[in-house]
Amino acid sequence: MKVTQQSVTSTFQAIQDEICLSLEQCDGKAAFHEDLWKREGGGGGRTRVIRDGNIFEKGGVNFSEVHGTCSPALKQQLDSHADSFFATGVSIVIHPKNPHVPIIHMNIRYFELSDGVCWFGGGIDLTPHFIDVNQAKQFHTGMKAVCDQFDTDYYPRFKKWADDYFFIPHRNETRGIGGIFFDHLGKGADSNKSIFDFTCAVGRTFAPLYTSLVNEKKALPFTSEQKDWQGLRRGRYVEFNLVHDRGTRFGLVSNGRTESILMSLPSHANWEYMHSVEENSPEEFTQSKLIKGIDWINA
Amino acid sequence: MKVTQQSVTSTFQAIQDEICLSLEQCDGKAAFHEDLWKREGGGGGRTRVIRDGNIFEKGGVNFSEVHGTCSPALKQQLDSHADSFFATGVSIVIHPKNPHVPIIHMNIRYFELSDGVCWFGGGIDLTPHFIDVNQAKQFHTGMKAVCDQFDTDYYPRFKKWADDYFFIPHRNETRGIGGIFFDHLGKGADSNKSIFDFTCAVGRTFAPLYTSLVNEKKALPFTSEQKDWQGLRRGRYVEFNLVHDRGTRFGLVSNGRTESILMSLPSHANWEYMHSVEENSPEEFTQSKLIKGIDWINA
Repeated sequence: MKVTQQSVTSTFQAIQDEICLSLEQCDGKAAFHEDLWKREGGGGGRTRVIRDGNIFEKGGVNFSEVHGTCSPALKQQLDSHADSFFATGVSIVIHPKNPHVPIIHMNIRYFELSDGVCWFGGGIDLTPHFIDVNQAKQFHTGMKAVCDQFDTDYYPRFKKWADDYFFIPHRNETRGIGGIFFDHLGKGADSNKSIFDFTCAVGRTFAPLYTSLVNEKKALPFTSEQKDWQGLRRGRYVEFNLVHDRGTRFGLVSNGRTESILMSLPSHANWEYMHSVEENSPEEFTQSKLIKGIDWINA
Repeated sequence: MKVTQQSVTSTFQAIQDEICLSLEQCDGKAAFHEDLWKREGGGGGRTRVIRDGNIFEKGGVNFSEVHGTCSPALKQQLDSHADSFFATGVSIVIHPKNPHVPIIHMNIRYFELSDGVCWFGGGIDLTPHFIDVNQAKQFHTGMKAVCDQFDTDYYPRFKKWADDYFFIPHRNETRGIGGIFFDHLGKGADSNKSIFDFTCAVGRTFAPLYTSLVNEKKALPFTSEQKDWQGLRRGRYVEFNLVHDRGTRFGLVSNGRTESILMSLPSHANWEYMHSVEENSPEEFTQSKLIKGIDWINA
């Protein structure tokens, strides 16, 4: 059985609603500000931004549903001759105030071409400013749990995919501790109902898992030096998003809504020439773990 | 008469020395820190960084001379079958502390291929956080003066080139008030001595012109709101450099020295979702002038 565009759209919107509610409850102060927008070629979105909260310094939980004619550039990128496309998704990036609370990113998306080809993609990845092995284990255990409900091959495949994708070559380091990443799932299959269910399960895993990570760390005190370190880690996040992230770059060059795309950037970021970390510090430990292939569940 | 690699290299190094001396005198507190580095495939550089000065919050004045085999990617980019290349240049970006003092960028470069094809490139462009028409006029008058010594066609051509190059399409705004930009100059000519002289004149115009702009503004008081605005303008600078700047992107994907390439990023930058400026404010005036084609000399 194939899912309908309508069912994907309405379920993704419901997931956006659930997540916003859950994050607002977790923050206890800030509320999401919503901007509705329309795309000239077809479709539009609901951009929701939270800022200056108790917990969340800046974050976005965006839904979009866009459709229209495939430009030559899009056809080339998709390796397709289809005339038109339909795409819908939810995209999240949250930058917390407290450097002990990790940055998180989540995305779920559905793509359908006029020739009938369709697929799902998505993922969640965590970027702690200070890596905590227990929390990394807890996060990856959550990622494995949602994968295992559908296919025990998913977690190892999608964990490796995240390690490879969320990597900053010019720094030779991963963006954070990874998570899961998948794309083109269900392409060519007669039924994509189970893939849809998996994608929604990933979306619905986000809020309880992240708020639990937040709650464990939110009360920890932090120093201005730790805030500076957070700024440097955020700088790397900016580098990844602007230099490498396919979604960001595609959005910017394809005339997407810039303010919605760049909601992923932090309110403040720092750069320092040749920054070096102190020996045996939590910063040094974090830097040493920004590598691919760590088995966090058994770390 | 063709210039020699040796004469270009030594003159560019002398220009780097002169500029560093001049900026240190202007700052009155901070000194450049130098890192010498070697490139695996051939050549190396002198990266010089200044920070936490009276005037300069963060800046780099870098010299490099690299040579080696042309990779397939480089051949494609250069549209050439030459086996090896030689490239040398001086690159500068300065981020001042006081938001009333403009950011500046300067670059001069020389490229030579093993098949004998060679050319010069370069430019200077100014990015005020607050555009001041008199200062813009003074800056462009300086740009025109150095151009007119060599060819009265240069300023109009290279001014337009800068407008087109230093443009952020996803923001639909220029990076600042432009300046001059040129590339592939002297390619195919029997003599490139005059182009070399022009390029050096551009390099030697930088320090007296910029320090004069700095001195006019350095004593102006500023508020924390103006510092925040500076952070937002710096955010756009980061966007331009990481998303669009050819030199930055080429350096990062071609395994260049990351810390030298990214010296161009500010120590602090801000992003705010849907930031809006107050009516009739200096910020609104600045934003309204971030467009191509302004005749600053007669503004």
